[in-house]
Amino acid sequence: MSPIEPVDLPRSYLLLNHGPTVLVTSAHGAARNVMAAAWAMPLDFNPPKMLVVVDKNTYTRELIEASGEFALCIPSRAQAAATLKVGSETGRGEDKFAACGLNTFAASKIGAPLVSDCLGWLECKVVPEPHNQQAYDLFIGEVVAAWAASDVFSQNRWHFPADERRSIHYLAGGSFFTTGQPFNVSEPVSEPEQP
Amino acid sequence: MSPIEPVDLPRSYLLLNHGPTVLVTSAHGAARNVMAAAWAMPLDFNPPKMLVVVDKNTYTRELIEASGEFALCIPSRAQAAATLKVGSETGRGEDKFAACGLNTFAASKIGAPLVSDCLGWLECKVVPEPHNQQAYDLFIGEVVAAWAASDVFSQNRWHFPADERRSIHYLAGGSFFTTGQPFNVSEPVSEPEQP
Repeated sequence: MSPIEPVDLPRSYLLLNHGPTVLVTSAHGAARNVMAAAWAMPLDFNPPKMLVVVDKNTYTRELIEASGEFALCIPSRAQAAATLKVGSETGRGEDKFAACGLNTFAASKIGAPLVSDCLGWLECKVVPEPHNQQAYDLFIGEVVAAWAASDVFSQNRWHFPADERRSIHYLAGGSFFTTGQPFNVSEPVSEPEQP
Repeated sequence: MSPIEPVDLPRSYLLLNHGPTVLVTSAHGAARNVMAAAWAMPLDFNPPKMLVVVDKNTYTRELIEASGEFALCIPSRAQAAATLKVGSETGRGEDKFAACGLNTFAASKIGAPLVSDCLGWLECKVVPEPHNQQAYDLFIGEVVAAWAASDVFSQNRWHFPADERRSIHYLAGGSFFTTGQPFNVSEPVSEPEQP
């Protein structure tokens, strides 16, 4: 696995700002699980908060509600088949990580495991909002630690070295896009004030 | 401008599922405005709902709260400079559409205008959630009409004909990614039950 480095918390939104699909990990006691989510995005910069939609019928939902924690892991192109698989099966009664060929390592501040070989990781504690959780399956997580693989993200910038290490964006029916080419548009400069 | 076609409402989430940056349009009386938002995503399939974060200090926020409506327009690579510009200026005291070189056309069910030459459009009515709006700047919109440019989206699928017509994903400091290459991973097939 590539070396990983911490990401400054106020810059951790950069890991999700471009809208990649994520793996949501959770744990409670000896139980743990992983699911895929295309519906995750930043909500605030500092303290950083993230949103993710987690359906009531999922085992992940039970584990998040029991533990008050989850992690968002950003999979690579090479992990797309596993991402689809974890999004299509339940973790009740089996270890879905093993079933989908995903290894894990320990998070620093939460009990949920982090998926090895991903591009970035956001360790989150749930900001309890029972109405959003019940009415919309919507969870808010405050980011308490963030990490990125240094081959793809360093000095607060993404730089994908190879297609297999690009982030991915799910559509439907097994179809994804990779994250494409970077480009820069000059920041508009404000007119200087008249002296 | 390319011909546009309606998108079936239960499939309208496909316009945002891959996480593109959007233009948020709004209107109230004779006033209208446009801003950029990287923080927008689907919340539900049917009836379709979308989330978008709109800061308290923006003119767009005033117009959305006054009208209860907004539209999410998906800009193309060719519109990236305008997207950055509308994200960097205020629409108070000027028509930001004109200042940024954006033409508009009328929506079908809401008063907010739609930005010409975009890839897709979601007309939304606010689902009032005062706590989310106040505490998190978070708005929920129910999609009441959806449209896509037929050169890039038809039969519920994206198909980008040229780089200038790809959707875009904002990072920071004027940096974007285009939406990249499509790829397909076979849907896992459930084991048939034993007879």
